[in-house]
Amino acid sequence: MVPDRETAERLDADDELAWARAEFVRPDGLVYLDGNSLGALGRGVPGRVADVVTRQWGEHLIRAWNDDGWWSAPERIGDRIGRLLGAAPGQTVVGESTSVQIFNALAAAARLRPGRSVLLTDPEHFPTDRYLAASVGRLLGLEVVERPVHQLAPTLRERGGDVAVVAYAAVDYRTGERWDVPALTAGAHAAGAVVVWDLCHAVGAMPLRLDADGVDLAVGCTYKFLSGGPGAPAFGYVAARHQAAYDPPLTGWHGHARPFAMAPRFEPAPGIARARVGTPPVLSLLALDAALDVFDKVDLGRLRDKSLSLGRFFLSCVDGLLDGLGFTVVTPREPARRGSQVTLRHPDAYPMMAALVERGVIGDVRPPDLLRFGFNPLYVSYVDLHTAVRELRDVAVSGRYRDPRFQVRQAVT
Amino acid sequence: MVPDRETAERLDADDELAWARAEFVRPDGLVYLDGNSLGALGRGVPGRVADVVTRQWGEHLIRAWNDDGWWSAPERIGDRIGRLLGAAPGQTVVGESTSVQIFNALAAAARLRPGRSVLLTDPEHFPTDRYLAASVGRLLGLEVVERPVHQLAPTLRERGGDVAVVAYAAVDYRTGERWDVPALTAGAHAAGAVVVWDLCHAVGAMPLRLDADGVDLAVGCTYKFLSGGPGAPAFGYVAARHQAAYDPPLTGWHGHARPFAMAPRFEPAPGIARARVGTPPVLSLLALDAALDVFDKVDLGRLRDKSLSLGRFFLSCVDGLLDGLGFTVVTPREPARRGSQVTLRHPDAYPMMAALVERGVIGDVRPPDLLRFGFNPLYVSYVDLHTAVRELRDVAVSGRYRDPRFQVRQAVT
Repeated sequence: MVPDRETAERLDADDELAWARAEFVRPDGLVYLDGNSLGALGRGVPGRVADVVTRQWGEHLIRAWNDDGWWSAPERIGDRIGRLLGAAPGQTVVGESTSVQIFNALAAAARLRPGRSVLLTDPEHFPTDRYLAASVGRLLGLEVVERPVHQLAPTLRERGGDVAVVAYAAVDYRTGERWDVPALTAGAHAAGAVVVWDLCHAVGAMPLRLDADGVDLAVGCTYKFLSGGPGAPAFGYVAARHQAAYDPPLTGWHGHARPFAMAPRFEPAPGIARARVGTPPVLSLLALDAALDVFDKVDLGRLRDKSLSLGRFFLSCVDGLLDGLGFTVVTPREPARRGSQVTLRHPDAYPMMAALVERGVIGDVRPPDLLRFGFNPLYVSYVDLHTAVRELRDVAVSGRYRDPRFQVRQAVT
Repeated sequence: MVPDRETAERLDADDELAWARAEFVRPDGLVYLDGNSLGALGRGVPGRVADVVTRQWGEHLIRAWNDDGWWSAPERIGDRIGRLLGAAPGQTVVGESTSVQIFNALAAAARLRPGRSVLLTDPEHFPTDRYLAASVGRLLGLEVVERPVHQLAPTLRERGGDVAVVAYAAVDYRTGERWDVPALTAGAHAAGAVVVWDLCHAVGAMPLRLDADGVDLAVGCTYKFLSGGPGAPAFGYVAARHQAAYDPPLTGWHGHARPFAMAPRFEPAPGIARARVGTPPVLSLLALDAALDVFDKVDLGRLRDKSLSLGRFFLSCVDGLLDGLGFTVVTPREPARRGSQVTLRHPDAYPMMAALVERGVIGDVRPPDLLRFGFNPLYVSYVDLHTAVRELRDVAVSGRYRDPRFQVRQAVT
């Protein structure tokens, strides 16, 4: 049966997380399904940013580093994110871009296994992960071996004794497929390797259990499901048991044991502070801090339930409304194998998304022919999803996407 | 003759840059001489940040990457800073922390001289520069040789053929001593080395002529004299002639020739875009953009004139008011050898600065016994300097700095 708008409205009326929508700015007439790229603005954020700019920076000036807690913010906010990762305090720190966090994590992971020569990663990994794996391989003399997730086990059987690092994403950025972090971590550990998980498309979208799963290192974005703001600083997780040996290439002064001693040699700070690098972008950092407030009120299990329910409803709309229009569902249908996104394949994906955006439904595209629709359970409604698929049907059926103005290939983050 | 307040007032009345003070927030009753650490808030910044948060992020969401120019901002703002560096467009880019920029610059510089084995740097360099030089040396198999600036020429005579990189600061962060960038660059080039200048304490405080001086690579902070905001992203300069061979370790996806092709291998963008790394912290980045507006109205030669005049006046106050109180002037007195800061040495520097801050005069301290006073010519007045030295005299003469509450050693950035 094709889901109708009334079904969507009923599901929204029963939604235990419906209250959270009011915590976000939702522009009139817009269906926003790109929160897996840039999360929406939380209502509490503008006021906090204004306070940081006007009162803390403007009035307190340099004293704000101590008096307003700027200096300790990377660890404090790291711990707030750590709670969402299933990480005990003192293992997560915020700062730098995701690319920088990935670089440091891959190199530090390789240095935890000095006798081994292989960095094993995903040929479908997000590009920056792959580019930085290649760079780390070149710097440290490692062979970078790319294998899809389903070949991880046989590769570890074959080359396990050589593998220093296993670096994969918890959720695939294109397909939204969710991988089995505990099982893959255990497999890597059985081979003696260290894992580095990229959590960009997982954090804030589902419960994680890094400590319980024995994860070694992890990194992630804060501007997707955490809604920390454009380019908000990334996080790094270093399991407590690895911290004493954690030895990254970016030995910036914020990671020093006594940064204001201005000591001649790098002496890493005890604990997670050694994973700090340079001075963090405070405005972006404290916007993230404000954005995290909503998570204090949310149970991640319920959030995951809604995420999966949204995905199920979206898939039923796709099945009912897009049948015969040339779309293929790329994302696995099994709930356990889905992140908080559904990806469709269509040969005209790019112009179709451009036409859809013009109609106020915002998803995004990935080459060569993928349409991505992300569901942040905190602010996406079932009616949003019904509207999105109905509009996509109109775009496809009408052929309006063939208009020349939709032929531009634009895509960002 | 001891300068009096009336002299200071007269100098302020004659100050051609006095109008610029009104462009900054100046908290009541505060004399702010720490703008060489964290620049003051420009009056235009809060409104611009609010617009970026509320309208661009909040309303435009992901579309802001294109529609509001976020994607191209690192190069656009880089060019604005380039103008202050004496750099033609297309050679400066903004993003990442200063530590990350330093790391990438040192490694990329070494790769421009593959047959050479020495990274020559300053034992008095800012700590993060030294820590990252050590890390780059370790990664690339370079010997890191530390020599003070005045030993640079003999060291290059002795070991010049081995030296790949010469990495120094244009202005010493502790003493405020300004080095001769063109002469030192020419000396390094004569030995066949590549220079990396750290401009943290120079940019925005004096004219620079990177292109004319033939500088190879440079990096710098934007939160000091540029007043870009706490932790505002740093900049990197890569001379046009080196860009095709510029090969940094941090090959993030923003530096790719076609980032949204999601290509499997890193293919560096043509031009300065290859020096981009990860997604920039947009709120901090665009606060910097707003902060740069005031520089559009300022001639850097006049700014330098005022900076030197402020320094001269400060030194005359020190000579007249602090004589016999145990202070030594560390900064050279010759104008050409001064940045925009004067540093005093005193055995009780730390408690003295704490007592001074309590009285509303903000400078900072550096180990073991240095008091730093920075002069941003855009918002520091002669009366500010007279007040500061008079208060410092009171602190020293009264002995109030001996109070136990001033014994805490606090210092930040």
